[in-house]
Amino acid sequence: MVAADLDGDIIGVDLGGTKIYGARFTRDGDTIRVDDQVKESTPTTDAGAVIDALVAVVESLTDRPVVVGVGAPGVVDSESGRVLVAPNLPGFDRSVPLRSLLADRLGCEVAVGNDVNLAALAETRIGAARGHDDVLAVWMGTGLGGGLVLDGRLRTGPNGMAAELGHVVVVPGGRRCRCGGTGHLEAYIGRRAIEERARALAAEGRGSELVDSAGAGPMKSKVFRQAYDSGDEVAVELLEEGLAMLGLAVANVAVTVDLDAVVVGGGLGERMGGEAVEWITKALENHGMVTAPPTVVTAALGDDAGAIGAAFLGLETSSRARSGS
Amino acid sequence: MVAADLDGDIIGVDLGGTKIYGARFTRDGDTIRVDDQVKESTPTTDAGAVIDALVAVVESLTDRPVVVGVGAPGVVDSESGRVLVAPNLPGFDRSVPLRSLLADRLGCEVAVGNDVNLAALAETRIGAARGHDDVLAVWMGTGLGGGLVLDGRLRTGPNGMAAELGHVVVVPGGRRCRCGGTGHLEAYIGRRAIEERARALAAEGRGSELVDSAGAGPMKSKVFRQAYDSGDEVAVELLEEGLAMLGLAVANVAVTVDLDAVVVGGGLGERMGGEAVEWITKALENHGMVTAPPTVVTAALGDDAGAIGAAFLGLETSSRARSGS
Repeated sequence: MVAADLDGDIIGVDLGGTKIYGARFTRDGDTIRVDDQVKESTPTTDAGAVIDALVAVVESLTDRPVVVGVGAPGVVDSESGRVLVAPNLPGFDRSVPLRSLLADRLGCEVAVGNDVNLAALAETRIGAARGHDDVLAVWMGTGLGGGLVLDGRLRTGPNGMAAELGHVVVVPGGRRCRCGGTGHLEAYIGRRAIEERARALAAEGRGSELVDSAGAGPMKSKVFRQAYDSGDEVAVELLEEGLAMLGLAVANVAVTVDLDAVVVGGGLGERMGGEAVEWITKALENHGMVTAPPTVVTAALGDDAGAIGAAFLGLETSSRARSGS
Repeated sequence: MVAADLDGDIIGVDLGGTKIYGARFTRDGDTIRVDDQVKESTPTTDAGAVIDALVAVVESLTDRPVVVGVGAPGVVDSESGRVLVAPNLPGFDRSVPLRSLLADRLGCEVAVGNDVNLAALAETRIGAARGHDDVLAVWMGTGLGGGLVLDGRLRTGPNGMAAELGHVVVVPGGRRCRCGGTGHLEAYIGRRAIEERARALAAEGRGSELVDSAGAGPMKSKVFRQAYDSGDEVAVELLEEGLAMLGLAVANVAVTVDLDAVVVGGGLGERMGGEAVEWITKALENHGMVTAPPTVVTAALGDDAGAIGAAFLGLETSSRARSGS
């Protein structure tokens, strides 16, 4: 899959809401290794400033980029290279033609993908799901993101909406989701949903270590881990309810597309990975129709997954364009 | 996709629980047309008799088959051509290497697929979803079957389990499914589930036109249509509950893989197609995250879909083997 005839440097960039993480990679047979890396704060003003910062990150890593892949936290049309919407980036509340803007400035091939999709690709190529061709990535952070690799290729779909796992309905008529829907998975799992629920319970007189530890600040992944470990009743109840819903949703994906591996990652996924693996495995094994339950593992690449996946997207898009497939 | 260099006849066979329907096809540009057809009763004794009957059907259509595709009502590993399990065929309660058995007898290439998957392929190639590349087929009959075409290719998955839509969970802890699971879609929609529920309600004193019309016999699709049209309270309640669950499940597939078309077929699907299209469309439009709702249509190929899809599977498998992709 990795083109061998590229003359220049391969760059992968993870464009996040607070940080831009860029890395330069060296090819090594079928894999790639990080050669150099840089981290900058994401501008908070407008889309133009974000583009400038991306160009600066790439140029600080190389003066001859040949392929640049970028992962963005939003809905991406990979075909056109447009970020359709990315609520956490300034000026990205409407469509931004990120690929063409960057390609013009950098003078090289550019590919753009959704950040969790690219983490899924990275984990499939050289991470925890290496050797598998049909992989679901489940990223537990503020919300709940998904990424899907089918037959060894990233599945983005005709509208760039594939693997929006946070928005599958798990409880008809259930809890209100931030997107306006009801009963979506993201209303049950992820830091934001559980924090909201824990604070609502506290307001009703049912306090918890979650609320006590977090105080007025945002509830961090570490707080969930500690409260769960100390057996805090609300933390255990909310996390296990959310993990049960996550297991149900993953089993539904398994009967829908047929999987051979599931990877759990993200900030909350790193802290609660063991439990997530356990609940997902149980849901798959208890589902009578999943005759060959997929392997369930925690992510291996940590914060580098997005940039690594972006580099692979760039290489594979470039390689497919050359072979015409 | 259709190979042009095959010397001999293309045969598609729909192997059903009661009938074997075989057809000989002529290529016509990118499409195929039925040239001749034959229908036989499915033997009820054992797998050997079923193989004999399949061979007889093919041989009654041609003396020089070049590609034979077969659709079977069960779990099929398309890679190996084995029917892993097909509860409605005698002797198919365990794995049967259908492809190699038929290829040995017929002396030609044979491809085997799941019947609803093949109906999905047929509707995508020359039926109601023609021109679309990402298609979900929803087959409402005794149960609820699914078929998935992604990027223009049938998605079967590493274990042949893709698109088992009848067994996605729609209500956590909900009604018992025939497979042993709880809250599966097939416990809410399909003739068997609604018949069971209507008879249970009648036993509790809540009779219905469904039970009155069906008497002791099985509840046929026509009975559902008539009771629904006459406004029978139980029929309306059960069918609309089932259609709501179907809509929810289809929307979940749309956010999982991203679709551009949905096709509704099957015996009950033919009778209740208009309502199914309406409920699915509503579920997709009301789902905030489905920004580009797929087209929802009723099937166009009727009972021929399985055999047509089988012929396409045969042709495309053969064509891919030749091109090495």
